[in-house]
Amino acid sequence: MNQIIECVPNFSEGRDREKIEKIVDSFRGKKGVKLLDYSNDENHNRLVVTVVGEYEPLKEAVLESVGKAVELIDLNKHEGQHPRMGAVDVIPFIPIKNATMDDCIRLSKEVGEAIGNDYKFPVFLYEKSASAPHRENLASIRKGEFEGMAEKIHEPEWHPDFGPEERHPTAGTVAVGARMPLVAYNINLNTTRLDIATNISKKIRHINGGFRFVKAMGVDLPDKGMVQVSINMTDFTKTALYRVFETVRFEAKRWGVTIAGSEIIGLVPMAALVDTAMYYLGLEDFSYSQVLESRIMDE
Amino acid sequence: MNQIIECVPNFSEGRDREKIEKIVDSFRGKKGVKLLDYSNDENHNRLVVTVVGEYEPLKEAVLESVGKAVELIDLNKHEGQHPRMGAVDVIPFIPIKNATMDDCIRLSKEVGEAIGNDYKFPVFLYEKSASAPHRENLASIRKGEFEGMAEKIHEPEWHPDFGPEERHPTAGTVAVGARMPLVAYNINLNTTRLDIATNISKKIRHINGGFRFVKAMGVDLPDKGMVQVSINMTDFTKTALYRVFETVRFEAKRWGVTIAGSEIIGLVPMAALVDTAMYYLGLEDFSYSQVLESRIMDE
Repeated sequence: MNQIIECVPNFSEGRDREKIEKIVDSFRGKKGVKLLDYSNDENHNRLVVTVVGEYEPLKEAVLESVGKAVELIDLNKHEGQHPRMGAVDVIPFIPIKNATMDDCIRLSKEVGEAIGNDYKFPVFLYEKSASAPHRENLASIRKGEFEGMAEKIHEPEWHPDFGPEERHPTAGTVAVGARMPLVAYNINLNTTRLDIATNISKKIRHINGGFRFVKAMGVDLPDKGMVQVSINMTDFTKTALYRVFETVRFEAKRWGVTIAGSEIIGLVPMAALVDTAMYYLGLEDFSYSQVLESRIMDE
Repeated sequence: MNQIIECVPNFSEGRDREKIEKIVDSFRGKKGVKLLDYSNDENHNRLVVTVVGEYEPLKEAVLESVGKAVELIDLNKHEGQHPRMGAVDVIPFIPIKNATMDDCIRLSKEVGEAIGNDYKFPVFLYEKSASAPHRENLASIRKGEFEGMAEKIHEPEWHPDFGPEERHPTAGTVAVGARMPLVAYNINLNTTRLDIATNISKKIRHINGGFRFVKAMGVDLPDKGMVQVSINMTDFTKTALYRVFETVRFEAKRWGVTIAGSEIIGLVPMAALVDTAMYYLGLEDFSYSQVLESRIMDE
């Protein structure tokens, strides 16, 4: 696979094993597409698929999966803890290798247009693909969920980007867009004082004046006798892991608190860790193509 | 490719483009084998191929390349700056992923036996595959080179491990073995004093009491106005890059000298850099399989 675009579609079915497998089958045994992971949560009643592929094969596989979801899932009968507005709820495309954000924006629009036309399933472009600033945030689009969308879709600022201006009777609406890879990154502190983790979270997160691509909150870890700065890195290519780590370290120092360790939850692109090694070793003139595994993936 | 074994065969032909391509063709267009790089040096009159593959396909491709080298290269007419004893001079097998050192030792012995039987080309097992301690070091085996090997091969301690006890009339002899990946890693110091780089090199290298898997020497870099600790890391899984980097840093400190930066020459396994990131970020419970690109390579 010479080009790698990641896609993490979320489907509103987390309980019926047969339906789950039918949907996931869309990503199996296809040249230029590789299923990396899928996990369903019964409480959330939701299925999260992680797949990578090249532009065209990935597009076709995603459209196939959307067709199956529209056929198999009826949101009128759906209940679960996770907010949702569609049979496929959200479809993000993420550039990993030999693909730009612009490629992913174009892909999201092609996929969105096909979903609107082929399945009469209304599409909101979100994140980097959004058609207006107030439509960038998924939570803003999804507010009201499947039930509320029956009315909301008629409001002038919530007309869909593709498909009919009417909620699909069983499938609802879907958000499609392009975004950078998310890295779920947590830093544990050698203290039980949650206020310190909360305070540091505010210093590093974008909304309070911190780094542009950091979301963060303080979390108590009573089992460990520690607290945690729980972080979502929304663009590690611009806000690097090591920069956040070192900032948390020097902020904690004012309370005489040290870092106990950190953890990455789920998958992380190789570049995020290579960038970290490059910083700490002061590596000069290093290219990702010097990583042996990176060469192996080229065709 | 679910299993990755690396092989870096060195051939004694660095000038004749047609012969070089014929040899390299052995590694092209084969399922389970991927040619990563090849480079010929006219002064050395030598070709270095970097290839990865799964056990059986890699074995077959390497044997095919050896057959071509025996057919095309006559060491009686070979001259170049690099010491050499065979048409294929050395064939190391290196475990990268889902392969152990024992797998590579077994592979080297199977390849060695086939070379001896099929091409009447005498084989010395070296490094981890060596049949005696005095035969581990390639330079010791190769001493005397092609010309001297006519006599040397008859000495009791230099009988070959496979093949006839007679130098091949045109192809000479070859070393085959298993070793860990080499990482060529250099650390530059903010000083022009070569004695400091030399002194630190002695402190970190195995031969003088340093780390088990470090070879090092001081090198002058007059163009940069610096000196360098030039390092060969012979097993980064046991002697980590960051450990050597931090040791050079604290040793340099006694002269008030700082590290200007470091560099990796050529290819490096992903794990060497991921290990470095894990150390500096204090990552807990992290697995290589969390690296997205590592998942993509699995089958």
